[in-house]
Amino acid sequence: MQKCRPGCYHAAVPADERALTDALAALDDHRDDELRIDGLAATELAERYDTPLYVFSARALDDRLAAVRAALGARVELLYSIKANPSLAVTGRLRRGGAGAEVASLGELHLALAAGHDAPSLRFAGPGKTEVEIAAAVALGLGTFHVESHDEIDTIAAAATAAHRRVRVAVRVNLPQQLAGARMRMGGRSSRFGIDEDQVPAAIERVGQHPHLDLAGLHVYAGTQCFDAGAFVQHATAIVTRAAAWERELGVPLDELDLGGGFGVPTSAGDPTFDLAAAGRGLGELIAAHDRPTRRWFVELGRYLTAPCGVYLTRVVRTKDSGGERHVVLDGGMHQCAAAAGMGSVIKRAPLLVHATDLRGEDRAPVSLGGPLCTPADQFAADLELPPLAAGDLVAILNAGAYGISYSPTGFLSHATPAEVMVEAGKARVVRERGDSRDVLRGQQP
Amino acid sequence: MQKCRPGCYHAAVPADERALTDALAALDDHRDDELRIDGLAATELAERYDTPLYVFSARALDDRLAAVRAALGARVELLYSIKANPSLAVTGRLRRGGAGAEVASLGELHLALAAGHDAPSLRFAGPGKTEVEIAAAVALGLGTFHVESHDEIDTIAAAATAAHRRVRVAVRVNLPQQLAGARMRMGGRSSRFGIDEDQVPAAIERVGQHPHLDLAGLHVYAGTQCFDAGAFVQHATAIVTRAAAWERELGVPLDELDLGGGFGVPTSAGDPTFDLAAAGRGLGELIAAHDRPTRRWFVELGRYLTAPCGVYLTRVVRTKDSGGERHVVLDGGMHQCAAAAGMGSVIKRAPLLVHATDLRGEDRAPVSLGGPLCTPADQFAADLELPPLAAGDLVAILNAGAYGISYSPTGFLSHATPAEVMVEAGKARVVRERGDSRDVLRGQQP
Repeated sequence: MQKCRPGCYHAAVPADERALTDALAALDDHRDDELRIDGLAATELAERYDTPLYVFSARALDDRLAAVRAALGARVELLYSIKANPSLAVTGRLRRGGAGAEVASLGELHLALAAGHDAPSLRFAGPGKTEVEIAAAVALGLGTFHVESHDEIDTIAAAATAAHRRVRVAVRVNLPQQLAGARMRMGGRSSRFGIDEDQVPAAIERVGQHPHLDLAGLHVYAGTQCFDAGAFVQHATAIVTRAAAWERELGVPLDELDLGGGFGVPTSAGDPTFDLAAAGRGLGELIAAHDRPTRRWFVELGRYLTAPCGVYLTRVVRTKDSGGERHVVLDGGMHQCAAAAGMGSVIKRAPLLVHATDLRGEDRAPVSLGGPLCTPADQFAADLELPPLAAGDLVAILNAGAYGISYSPTGFLSHATPAEVMVEAGKARVVRERGDSRDVLRGQQP
Repeated sequence: MQKCRPGCYHAAVPADERALTDALAALDDHRDDELRIDGLAATELAERYDTPLYVFSARALDDRLAAVRAALGARVELLYSIKANPSLAVTGRLRRGGAGAEVASLGELHLALAAGHDAPSLRFAGPGKTEVEIAAAVALGLGTFHVESHDEIDTIAAAATAAHRRVRVAVRVNLPQQLAGARMRMGGRSSRFGIDEDQVPAAIERVGQHPHLDLAGLHVYAGTQCFDAGAFVQHATAIVTRAAAWERELGVPLDELDLGGGFGVPTSAGDPTFDLAAAGRGLGELIAAHDRPTRRWFVELGRYLTAPCGVYLTRVVRTKDSGGERHVVLDGGMHQCAAAAGMGSVIKRAPLLVHATDLRGEDRAPVSLGGPLCTPADQFAADLELPPLAAGDLVAILNAGAYGISYSPTGFLSHATPAEVMVEAGKARVVRERGDSRDVLRGQQP
């Protein structure tokens, strides 16, 4: 196999596998055939911290955040959507790098505060905030609620009144147009998310009627895993245009515009790449046309910020042949890395999975890779071309820094939860302790 | 609406909704319109323990276990597959009712021991048992390993040798025929589960070569959610026939035959019902034809034993209209009751969901019911006909006593985990404490 330059995998990786080369390049220059995270070999990390293991690269996280902030420009305030990875270390690092945060539960609010965010800067989204959660958030000093229905406005007002506090609300709008190019859409149709466009004036009036509420502006979030930068800009343009019209019609300022996010991250080798530069240019033009000193522009990203910094390392427990096919059984699986096993996806596609000590291996053959659970659903790939794997070998799932442990049914078959480590400048530290197999008993009574 | 007799829902529930009437009848006689669990009103339970909440009925569990044991007959030893519901209270109660247990991880082994099982009676299955897990299980005195590949035999032998113990192994067989009528199949094709039929003689020989191993017999588990009792008996017949042939050919006794399980449980109103009596009759004939004093017959069931005893209670946070449709937002969702939200299923069908205080309500209209998470995937039903629901009302998902919390991504959006209560003779007690919204920080470092 020809190795033309560091970071080039062209012999092993076909042209449509840019997603794989990008994911590897985010972690290290990979001058040899071994997977490294910020200079630390995956094998060394597995040896030291055991498997299965999540590894986050501080540098990859910093680089990604810097690239996004540069592309979006100084006028955009970037919010980290904590739901993507409620890691205290990741959230804290993004904060220190200049990202704000958006929370979607009381748990995420506690995490944001522990990560050093100040409560007034935080924004609380979600269609089902309860009275208890709203009251607790008000008591903690939360800044802004994104409201998703009319009666939620009253609930927030009641909590603010009871606490003798003023609270800011932004109205989440369900625009009639869909976000083109998004794999999962949350607007442009009947939805529990946001308030239908034709009901927004009534919602804005309702906010104005409550003396303890301040109208912050509007919020839109129409979908996620969007690979079409033009569609994102188009959708942002639609909400900005509507905001201008409502300001004229209703005579209220809508200073804060949260344009959502949902930039796509490749999860399979053939996936497209989101054109961040194009999104930044389009957004820049939109902002230039509608800016004013009192206006604040927000973009909220979760997966796009954290996915490339994370790797899920899992070890081959055994291999076996059945029905003439090769099966690789791993110590990790869908209970810890559910998204990569296609849980929640209708179409199953192989994740960005590599042989951790033979990245460029030429002698590839199709194998099925599955985890230790007693279900056929615990499978990462049915027919993936990989160099030979034997018991003890490591495989890695790349772009696994989002929707990892938190998206996974970690209690399914009662295995211990994996540890998470953060690598920074060649040094690793545990940022989430490994669970114990006796944790299944926690909180239980006979 | 006509109420012809207690337990009859014929006006509200069409003929094809037997699954729903059966699920209600398992919990209470429901003489009025209110959901009760062993005589305790769902509203009372929600008031006392808050929502979302899992409720298990001790009586329903006892009844189900007794019905299964009666149908399968005295020669069958029933094993509880703990993976279905790793509740200490449920597992312990099934043990006291006469069920053995099958475990699939070290965590489940600890749970089984805590529930009062003695280690030698336990059986450990799963395709990815690691060296560490095997050694720990041997040290804990585990009785029987179900082996799923050749080299696993060597690993178990090494652990037994190192611990100076004798260990029993049963060979899990991947028969060439599929289990007809099963929604999820694990055999009858190339698979990481079990050992292909043509490789079984070699595996049996390999067991015989290790002085610390005793060959217990064979195990088969070909699929789950099987609604065809005849297909189950047919599959059991196939393994019994193969066992007889191998005994002749290889000259070894295969005394223990674990015939698997996977009896189907309805999860949607139109689902079929598994004919337990027919399975029992068929199995009885098979056993009569192949029985002998040294033989032990096992059937292992998880979902079939526990699903009907469990209810997931969740409260309406708010309702809203969007695009001319009615949306109900609940305080519970896919993060706690993933199976009911179709996570892991390709086809989304409404679960057995009822209005907890208007079971027979006539004035029904279609509503969408979703949880509080910021994803369209957090939805139980898109268009379910229900009596009117308002904020504060309770809905209940029935047949939710299996694959509940443990199958759900409880960390997704960092909500507190729900409590579990067991109702027994009209009295309720907490068997799993409710989580706290600060639990997201557990084990984390900045």
